Amino acid sequence: MKLKTLLLALSLIGGTAMAQESKIAEMQQKAKALIAQMTVEEKIEQLMNATPGIERLGIKPYNYWSEALHGVARNGKATVFPEPIGMGASFNPELLQAVGEAISDEARAKFDDSQRLQRYGIYAGLTFWSPNVNIFRDPRWGRGMETFGEDPYLTGVMGSAFVHGMQGNDPFYLKTATCAKHFAVHSGPETLRHSFDARPSQRDLFETYLPAFRTLVEDAKVEIVMGAYNRVFGKSASGSDYLLTDLLRNQWGFQGHVVSDCGAVTDIWQGHKLAADGAEACAIAIKAGLNVECGDTFQYMGEALKRGLVTEEELDNALLPLLMTRIKLGILFDDPDCPYNHCAETSTILSKEHVALARRAAQETMLLLKNDEALPIDKNINSICVVGAGATDIFSMFGNYYGVSNHYTTYLEGIVDKVSPSTSVLHRSGYMYGGPNLNAVDWSYGDAQGADVCVLVLGNTGNFEGEEGDAIATVEQGDRTTLMLPEHQMEYFRKVAKDHKNKLVTVITGGSPVDLREIYAGSDAVIQVWYPGQEGGTALADLLFGDANFSGRLPMTVPVSTEVLPDFDNYDMHGRTYKYMDQENILFPFGYGLSYGQVQYDDAALEGPVDGDNRGIFDLKRIKKGKQEPIRMQAKIWTEGTQPVYETMQLYACAPGSAAVEGCKVGEAGDVANSQLIAFRKVLVKPGEPQIVTFEITPEDLMTVQPDGTKALVKGVHSLYLGAAAPGVRSSELGVSIVGTAVVVK
Amino acid sequence: MKLKTLLLALSLIGGTAMAQESKIAEMQQKAKALIAQMTVEEKIEQLMNATPGIERLGIKPYNYWSEALHGVARNGKATVFPEPIGMGASFNPELLQAVGEAISDEARAKFDDSQRLQRYGIYAGLTFWSPNVNIFRDPRWGRGMETFGEDPYLTGVMGSAFVHGMQGNDPFYLKTATCAKHFAVHSGPETLRHSFDARPSQRDLFETYLPAFRTLVEDAKVEIVMGAYNRVFGKSASGSDYLLTDLLRNQWGFQGHVVSDCGAVTDIWQGHKLAADGAEACAIAIKAGLNVECGDTFQYMGEALKRGLVTEEELDNALLPLLMTRIKLGILFDDPDCPYNHCAETSTILSKEHVALARRAAQETMLLLKNDEALPIDKNINSICVVGAGATDIFSMFGNYYGVSNHYTTYLEGIVDKVSPSTSVLHRSGYMYGGPNLNAVDWSYGDAQGADVCVLVLGNTGNFEGEEGDAIATVEQGDRTTLMLPEHQMEYFRKVAKDHKNKLVTVITGGSPVDLREIYAGSDAVIQVWYPGQEGGTALADLLFGDANFSGRLPMTVPVSTEVLPDFDNYDMHGRTYKYMDQENILFPFGYGLSYGQVQYDDAALEGPVDGDNRGIFDLKRIKKGKQEPIRMQAKIWTEGTQPVYETMQLYACAPGSAAVEGCKVGEAGDVANSQLIAFRKVLVKPGEPQIVTFEITPEDLMTVQPDGTKALVKGVHSLYLGAAAPGVRSSELGVSIVGTAVVVK
Repeated sequence: MKLKTLLLALSLIGGTAMAQESKIAEMQQKAKALIAQMTVEEKIEQLMNATPGIERLGIKPYNYWSEALHGVARNGKATVFPEPIGMGASFNPELLQAVGEAISDEARAKFDDSQRLQRYGIYAGLTFWSPNVNIFRDPRWGRGMETFGEDPYLTGVMGSAFVHGMQGNDPFYLKTATCAKHFAVHSGPETLRHSFDARPSQRDLFETYLPAFRTLVEDAKVEIVMGAYNRVFGKSASGSDYLLTDLLRNQWGFQGHVVSDCGAVTDIWQGHKLAADGAEACAIAIKAGLNVECGDTFQYMGEALKRGLVTEEELDNALLPLLMTRIKLGILFDDPDCPYNHCAETSTILSKEHVALARRAAQETMLLLKNDEALPIDKNINSICVVGAGATDIFSMFGNYYGVSNHYTTYLEGIVDKVSPSTSVLHRSGYMYGGPNLNAVDWSYGDAQGADVCVLVLGNTGNFEGEEGDAIATVEQGDRTTLMLPEHQMEYFRKVAKDHKNKLVTVITGGSPVDLREIYAGSDAVIQVWYPGQEGGTALADLLFGDANFSGRLPMTVPVSTEVLPDFDNYDMHGRTYKYMDQENILFPFGYGLSYGQVQYDDAALEGPVDGDNRGIFDLKRIKKGKQEPIRMQAKIWTEGTQPVYETMQLYACAPGSAAVEGCKVGEAGDVANSQLIAFRKVLVKPGEPQIVTFEITPEDLMTVQPDGTKALVKGVHSLYLGAAAPGVRSSELGVSIVGTAVVVK
Repeated sequence: MKLKTLLLALSLIGGTAMAQESKIAEMQQKAKALIAQMTVEEKIEQLMNATPGIERLGIKPYNYWSEALHGVARNGKATVFPEPIGMGASFNPELLQAVGEAISDEARAKFDDSQRLQRYGIYAGLTFWSPNVNIFRDPRWGRGMETFGEDPYLTGVMGSAFVHGMQGNDPFYLKTATCAKHFAVHSGPETLRHSFDARPSQRDLFETYLPAFRTLVEDAKVEIVMGAYNRVFGKSASGSDYLLTDLLRNQWGFQGHVVSDCGAVTDIWQGHKLAADGAEACAIAIKAGLNVECGDTFQYMGEALKRGLVTEEELDNALLPLLMTRIKLGILFDDPDCPYNHCAETSTILSKEHVALARRAAQETMLLLKNDEALPIDKNINSICVVGAGATDIFSMFGNYYGVSNHYTTYLEGIVDKVSPSTSVLHRSGYMYGGPNLNAVDWSYGDAQGADVCVLVLGNTGNFEGEEGDAIATVEQGDRTTLMLPEHQMEYFRKVAKDHKNKLVTVITGGSPVDLREIYAGSDAVIQVWYPGQEGGTALADLLFGDANFSGRLPMTVPVSTEVLPDFDNYDMHGRTYKYMDQENILFPFGYGLSYGQVQYDDAALEGPVDGDNRGIFDLKRIKKGKQEPIRMQAKIWTEGTQPVYETMQLYACAPGSAAVEGCKVGEAGDVANSQLIAFRKVLVKPGEPQIVTFEITPEDLMTVQPDGTKALVKGVHSLYLGAAAPGVRSSELGVSIVGTAVVVK
């Protein structure tokens, strides 16, 4: 009986894989048969994002353009989760996967309702153009908020978690389709995106710009890839055979479809001037491997056919993966076998569970940068002041590519909800986002100065940073020109910092680093809240009053000021991110963030092959033979606080030649990254319960990208650092607990 | 048995009145005994708002300064009701009384909690410096939002309702104490308030500036009156024996205490230069009838005593009514007989009932000015856009003198909550408060232009209008210099009005008239929402989607533009309000407002003494003998709509010599008001159910104030107009339904 069950199980597993392959083949045949019945005009129409229906073939209208960066976006009511930069700060892929599951639940419910009402417009579909796995290369980039930060490894892990949550786990069908964008080497300036030619070094390309895309394609099986606007090595990223065919399909085995960024094909001829006209641009895009255009240059496809620039077969080839996406979604023919069809309840939209998840997510994104005995706040405090325009405007919690909820909680409301009935809560708007105060009789702080604690909300909103035309307060089309906050906000900060008599807690909104020197010096506590979504106020209040513990960690380096940044349009990574930034330019290191009760690391030790000095040994010959055993690094962690802490343990490797923990000047250390994150784990550390935590390290983990773009395991001593931020002088100065050991590669 | 019960009841009624008098006498003796035990220094300390305790006399510290303009204010969590200007628009005194009851419930709960925690600071008491019954004389006045509008009668009725709700109905004890402010002739400019000398005509004084105060004192028994900053006829209002003693105590029988506006006594010597020093200012104030100073000039009272400028007896006399207020509140000795002591539950704060009341109140304040088949909106609408900074910022709903809630609903949230799961809700911030858009690539309206309905939120906030130093965006210390909205808001309006393809609904926030010409012309619907408090978003959405009907009516005239206004510092009423404004200067008349389903008036008729022409007759001889019978005016009202309407029936009288309904130019008609509101009633009109409604008219109702300030019933024909706005050419042009009749006084 037992044996029988085992055999049955085995046959099912094998059978599933086989069934899977035959299902793909069967569906491809079906798609090909459909394509064969289409006229050329119909094919062309199907290759642009807003496709019409073809009634005689049973094909409904469908628009490939939908958005779900942190919740179903631009399509009516939905739970609004934190902007991805904050999810990067959570260092919690399980949490992000759960968020993806919730979003896709709501997406299916909304899709069913839309179909019922025959609404086939933009944003009403199931092909979501998220996540953005570009690298937050420069803090000025307006769209940096959409990313998971500056680290390729973290970006790959978080992006994959989102894809898994959104796409579901059926072997064939997709719950929703997600999209890795913008492929590739895309991170501003927004003013140049339609004309810029990025020419990164091979090392930067394969070390920084491509790994997250590769992870999403190879590991997470992302269904869609979006070509970027800019050129890469002279060719439009949306018309690059190297990117879209050689790398993506041939080397990485991508099976889904490629969409252009919106208008990117038009940019081929009008922006980049790589084609004489629209027909030539069509040909470049199709031949390079693009499957669907977001835009309208494909209207010249018929002309391109006539002129012999493209063949109908090329159109058929482009169309096949595109139709396959809709087949995998079960929506091309309203497939009854698709487990995601017609089972979503509209009650899932903004359900109690989803709202609770949004609150937990927001808690985990928020980041404590300083706490000089100001926090947590006693709920029975006598008086608290809450000042600043960001405290009352839910827009300060939106970010970009957002949906809309029926219930947000502002920071003011969150705080009011926590305090006792007779706690005095003094509110002042304080400043306005768009300009300076004009009233000479200035009550903008007023009697709030006597409050026991003052919570001052400063920072950016989606009007100060964002995409091209989105951020209305920017002169550089969405990008910032400075890391400073608007001067009238700083004036208000100075007034409050001067007048306040007790504790000052400064809360910074926004999706990117700001120049925090003055704020850090003048505040008793500093918190970065990003764009936390609808539960921003409840989450912040949970943290402020100690009902939850801070666990956010910086997903990017905070430089001391604008002045230390390389030119914005310089795609060379020297001087950027924790890997290549000079330590004296760093105010807060990557991975940094405080909690109530610091977590300490100690007793680093290695298990597995070690030498007499307790250094691990990787033997290249054994590796070649497949006989190398992994090494396990362990350390003790504990907290001296009174609250449990969710600690993000971060493991960094420093290859031979890196400046490693001391010095860390790229100039001195040469071309090798100071360190690179190779693993992290968020663990719950309870007071009085020290833990031994173990990380397994494989030779693959210690490989580094060489100047020619290849990966290699370099001979010599590789340092390993396990701790609460990226290793370096600045982390030492801040008292970050980090333990080190080493592995010798021979 | 029955007789016995009756006799008992009668004896109780008589007994109550007697008991009441003896209770007052007893308590006054107690207070006097206390005063007798105080040192001079202690007496002086008790005459300033932040009084210390006197332990040996069992007196606790107490601060007379608390605020509750539309909810307990500046003292932590509380239900936030609409700003008074909106309550004026509700024309619903019963509603406002209920609001007052809710506020005082919360006030008592908060007071108990404060006392338990020994918190005796500012804003933590039970003496609330509301309502503001000043007349909204000029739309530029920053504090106009605090008033019930421009009409003295409406102001008196609404102010009294608030006082009744707040003070409770015990014959001796007070639930809370309220304050009629600012006494008198006070309505800007804020820049001049510490130095200005108001010299109104006797007619304006007794017709416009004083009636509401008199009503609150005589009818509503308001416990506190606050002296204004400005001078009146040369004397500081806070140091005017004419205002504080002759009128208030001697003529009107005021029994409570008078507080100065904060710093007003200092203004006597430093602002108005009416005294050489602080001691002289003390003497002026005390001798004039002031009981307690908000400020610190009374620190010179000791010196004034020494110099013989005041006597200790005068201090005792000032102190008696002040201590009596605390005795009536039951809090000077923690009086166990006070029915309001120690019975409040903190759960009353922000209770479900109070929040529901705040929502209903907000609904009744909002005002529909235009509806060209744009409203109500179908909840299953395909797409709706919600744009404008005011749509997401709860501060746009605060007004001034506000409390803070743990839960506000923005306009965006309210709308999102109503629509179907697949309704597309497109949001853009659109513009920023405080400055223009800077981004040349302008997506500030973007794809929202295709939405079926666009809801654009424009308008002022507490930063653009308010008190002196409060409104940070004003150059004139809280006042506006123009009725125009900020130019960058108008630029955005023009963009939206040009680009939008379907219905445009413009929502105007703020507490005062704005220049609506361009907005009215370019919008399909226009709504004034005032500062609606925490339920602003739910209330607006209820109205937008037809779950409730608009019933707000203008509590002030909306002039066509800034240019038609008299000089701001001119206190002459000519050219102001519906009574004296030229009809061609009026964009929307006083009392105007639309509902779903217009209410029609017809069949006006009089009952009682009428002549052969069906005109009523008031006979001065019969009146003198007390034999005049009242006249009853009746009319039929009905609605042709499909929804019930809460209609505000307004009865206006036009005395002989007034321009009445035709012409209405003050210049032509002389010095007599065009019309004056003498009664109103908010009635529910159901579709298909016409009603006959009757108003009783007494000779008193038709009396008018003469040039010498006396009231008289003038011989001749008095016109009566019953309808949906103030009578006049502009009301006719707008198609307002009004019926007329007349009464002859002979």
